[in-house]
Amino acid sequence: MFSCWLSRLCRGLSTPTGRVTHLIQGSLSRRLMLSSQRRIPELSSFVARTNTCGELRSSHLGQEVTLCGWIQYRRQNIFLVLRDFHGLVQVVIPQDESAASVKKILCEAPMESVVQVSGTVISRPPGQENPKMPTGEIEIKVKSAQLLNTCKKLPFEIKDFVKKTEALRLQYRYLDLRSFQMQYNLRLRSRMVMKMREYLCNLHGFVDIETPTLFKRTPGGAKEFVIPSREPGKFYCLPQSPQQFKQLLMVGGLDRYFQVARCYRDEGSRPDRQPEFTQIDIEMSFVDQIGIRSLIEGLLQYSWPSDKDPVVVPFPSMTFAEALASYGTDKPDTRFGMKKYLKRKDIESLRKLAADHFNQEVLPVFPKANRNWNSPVAKSIMEEQRSELIRLMEIQEDGVVLLTAGEHRKACSVLGKLRLECADLLEARGLVLRDPALFSFLWVVDFPLFLPKEENPGELESAHHPFTAPHPSDIHLLHTEPKQVRSQHYDLVLNGNEIGGGSIRIHDAELQRYILATLLKEDVKLLSHLLQALDFGAPPHGGIALGLDRLICLVTGAPSIRDVIAFPKSFRGHDLMSNAPDSLPPEELKPYHIQVSWPADSEAEKSSLNQPYHPES
Amino acid sequence: MFSCWLSRLCRGLSTPTGRVTHLIQGSLSRRLMLSSQRRIPELSSFVARTNTCGELRSSHLGQEVTLCGWIQYRRQNIFLVLRDFHGLVQVVIPQDESAASVKKILCEAPMESVVQVSGTVISRPPGQENPKMPTGEIEIKVKSAQLLNTCKKLPFEIKDFVKKTEALRLQYRYLDLRSFQMQYNLRLRSRMVMKMREYLCNLHGFVDIETPTLFKRTPGGAKEFVIPSREPGKFYCLPQSPQQFKQLLMVGGLDRYFQVARCYRDEGSRPDRQPEFTQIDIEMSFVDQIGIRSLIEGLLQYSWPSDKDPVVVPFPSMTFAEALASYGTDKPDTRFGMKKYLKRKDIESLRKLAADHFNQEVLPVFPKANRNWNSPVAKSIMEEQRSELIRLMEIQEDGVVLLTAGEHRKACSVLGKLRLECADLLEARGLVLRDPALFSFLWVVDFPLFLPKEENPGELESAHHPFTAPHPSDIHLLHTEPKQVRSQHYDLVLNGNEIGGGSIRIHDAELQRYILATLLKEDVKLLSHLLQALDFGAPPHGGIALGLDRLICLVTGAPSIRDVIAFPKSFRGHDLMSNAPDSLPPEELKPYHIQVSWPADSEAEKSSLNQPYHPES
Repeated sequence: MFSCWLSRLCRGLSTPTGRVTHLIQGSLSRRLMLSSQRRIPELSSFVARTNTCGELRSSHLGQEVTLCGWIQYRRQNIFLVLRDFHGLVQVVIPQDESAASVKKILCEAPMESVVQVSGTVISRPPGQENPKMPTGEIEIKVKSAQLLNTCKKLPFEIKDFVKKTEALRLQYRYLDLRSFQMQYNLRLRSRMVMKMREYLCNLHGFVDIETPTLFKRTPGGAKEFVIPSREPGKFYCLPQSPQQFKQLLMVGGLDRYFQVARCYRDEGSRPDRQPEFTQIDIEMSFVDQIGIRSLIEGLLQYSWPSDKDPVVVPFPSMTFAEALASYGTDKPDTRFGMKKYLKRKDIESLRKLAADHFNQEVLPVFPKANRNWNSPVAKSIMEEQRSELIRLMEIQEDGVVLLTAGEHRKACSVLGKLRLECADLLEARGLVLRDPALFSFLWVVDFPLFLPKEENPGELESAHHPFTAPHPSDIHLLHTEPKQVRSQHYDLVLNGNEIGGGSIRIHDAELQRYILATLLKEDVKLLSHLLQALDFGAPPHGGIALGLDRLICLVTGAPSIRDVIAFPKSFRGHDLMSNAPDSLPPEELKPYHIQVSWPADSEAEKSSLNQPYHPES
Repeated sequence: MFSCWLSRLCRGLSTPTGRVTHLIQGSLSRRLMLSSQRRIPELSSFVARTNTCGELRSSHLGQEVTLCGWIQYRRQNIFLVLRDFHGLVQVVIPQDESAASVKKILCEAPMESVVQVSGTVISRPPGQENPKMPTGEIEIKVKSAQLLNTCKKLPFEIKDFVKKTEALRLQYRYLDLRSFQMQYNLRLRSRMVMKMREYLCNLHGFVDIETPTLFKRTPGGAKEFVIPSREPGKFYCLPQSPQQFKQLLMVGGLDRYFQVARCYRDEGSRPDRQPEFTQIDIEMSFVDQIGIRSLIEGLLQYSWPSDKDPVVVPFPSMTFAEALASYGTDKPDTRFGMKKYLKRKDIESLRKLAADHFNQEVLPVFPKANRNWNSPVAKSIMEEQRSELIRLMEIQEDGVVLLTAGEHRKACSVLGKLRLECADLLEARGLVLRDPALFSFLWVVDFPLFLPKEENPGELESAHHPFTAPHPSDIHLLHTEPKQVRSQHYDLVLNGNEIGGGSIRIHDAELQRYILATLLKEDVKLLSHLLQALDFGAPPHGGIALGLDRLICLVTGAPSIRDVIAFPKSFRGHDLMSNAPDSLPPEELKPYHIQVSWPADSEAEKSSLNQPYHPES
């Protein structure tokens, strides 16, 4: 386990073999040139060390080195294992009288103290090599040592972090970050984002533009944090995305924009969400859906980590209607088909789940041999309907069919959830349905442009956001049957998770006004600047945003997005390390012309009742 | 002017000559390899156009092209100039009957409408070439055209933006962004940041790590915006820098960190400040001051735009004491020495300035021939003092000396300001003292660690921040004469502007506690997480932050940082385009348990009196 992380961590960081002769021909494509170019970052420039602990190999034998690192462990006051981000190396503690002071330092420093040692790289005695350790052929014969800092008794051991509760890990995040898994996750994230930047800036001429985060409320922006200003009653808001700004950049002629954008969403307590998150935000002028899709396929292919299987493009695509009908969700996990191996008691637990959680009756059908269906529902299905169903559903004879009835979207959705439940059941029996090494991308397209409002189904709301362009084939329906209009929105799905979404935008001011004012009944005043911008020669444009935290989480196989963020909040939005958010004395609120409205006791009780109790992770 | 922007804009974007054969030898250094590698971004991948308007040259003759752009102007319904971010190109409007529909589109579309045209690149007729235009040898013979969007009457013409008020430019920022100057500034910014990333990540193994912006109040953080949370009375704060997080990353073993970090500072109305700004934030373990300085010198050298003179390293350095004594400031403009050419009436205006603005008497001395000083002060200076002064100040015989008396820091500061005033006076006469093409970097070091508190000079406050390490030679003074202790802080100055600052930090928990609690009398509880982290094996570390907006402003020669930010706030903190900050209905504040405290009329009046009136830019 340990050496596995090590070798994954080291790959792509440096090679111990020194410099390689490059002969790059002009006939190679630009892309090849960039990716074939060796990256050997100098990991020890500008600092006290000559080498990292993890990079030393037999090729360094005889070299005088200076290393800095943490004491990982010590054996019988003879050996000491020193750790830095790059790996581990064995240090031989000198035993002769003349080196008594060095021995004292190295033997007395508590575990996790920081030391600097200088010495010679030597071979381990024959038979003492450790093939599980990348540096296992060598050790360091120390000449001098310096204690850079001591370490008090730790709340947990660094190497054992996985067994600690997440709350403890978050409280001592700076210790948790020393784990190889966190080092691997954060370094992979940095490298992957850097490759994305190379692809966008250097290969395709995109411009990295920073947009403001002190903005104003957007229509319907109920999940936006508010920031009081020094003007009484005036507030900034933290935007959920740079949507308006990126469209305004297109109007401004900056026609290939991207940003690794910090976004904010106040959703209260929801597991695996963060109040601040990061998206790869992209917008282009003069582009269509196919253009954006090709760009993103190329982006992921180019930036994909070299220790994973390469990404195959183009990604398959599926309409929203198809995804709902076949998978019961708009984000199908297409790694598996899965309609087998269920046991009778599984079926019962699935029926119970559907009834308890979704208030939906589900009936199993076993279309066994002789078409003598073994199901409570069998008697109400005619013989010829049976064969038709079998044909339509492409059922195998020993399969199981789960039937349900009801409103299309709801019925499909329940069956989609049961499909994932079945996968859980089968994987609990050791069947690998969802191979973690498999990355199954899928475009979902042709979403509806509008949905009925949940609280008032007679009115419409945008399925995504009000700037989404209608599907060109459905524009004629806008004035007659707006509910039937499909949009030019597209989602990117990876292994059953939505990792991105975007659309071709409306660039016609009249159409945008009609949709906002007449169909959505929004207050157009809040968006007057955007509508005006569309009047002044706005080019056709479209874009996309990829959820970076979720993407890196899937790539690294981390159990939670908190494992790919250096300092995440708990799912109640707390920083358990620094104790944010925190109380402020009233005088610090005065310049902002606000005061706290303390809830009355009864109200506080009510609000705590409304909010389901979530213990901190 | 116009073609000058154009050619600066195009340089570094693409070369029209196609691909060049590269032969890169392994014997070349890594740095050379990376910078010699040609970047020819594909500016027309994934989109409707085949080429940009600005890239077409004689080498494209005969090619069928599709272009998308804005109509810049039209001449006699025969020619039309099409513009995109890359430049201008002349389009010939077809005059024959068969192309009547194309002619109609191109002749009737208002200026700044967006069109797509397809046609052939042809030579301009002999004598009609325009050598001032990069595309001046060719024009486009159009076959088809499409009106992508029309443009209503503009509030100002795009090409004339400089003459408009800044308020108008900010209100219609999306139009202002179409100007060549804004395109140049934002694209240069993007390229320069990308090169910095290459240097840090690809050459030196730095890890790009995002730190939270929803944090808690830091001690003394009076300029931090507050964000109410859904817990009554609990607030997040937007940090002024990732200072605590980057130090915690060092404790976490992520030993080479950087981030292009969004930072926040609520300073009310101050010219040329922004409530949100960006810094290149860097931290390293096991490093000393010289290491950080070399890193930054290499960073600026590597990322410096190719159309400027190369940066020469190492940068000179000067102690704070020296800078104050010689230049009267901690950020000297070292482009000029300057002690000449002043006229009698200039001296009078300088004396008046010092008396009116700084309440400080200044006396001129003219050490002319014969040492017969022409000055009111001459008679009180002895003959031998005169020669000593002339020797010490290295005065030329025809120079002018301005003398003043008083507290050292204040007296120096006045003289420093008069020095800049002299430069203004002399430049108004046509003397070039501060060459805008000259970039004069300077390190200022050995700052004091503490300053007396302004409101209570008996107490100390940090000259920079409380995590700055004391100078190793002065540690013994910490307990006896803390005011005499110099720090390991360093500032980077460019042409008289502070563009960066940093320090070696305290990594010893006891020392940090002593400074915070005993010397600064801060509430240590607010920083308990950081103090605890130092206890658990914190490595020695240090770092720096460069102010990106200011740096890009100086590099581009822009008059204000607002010209290098896509959507800046006015200096009262307003977004004049979207009208942020804005009012919110009370029900939107309810989830955050706050209400507005409307100031009483008298109070409002008082506060408006305290705040000097600033018309919006």
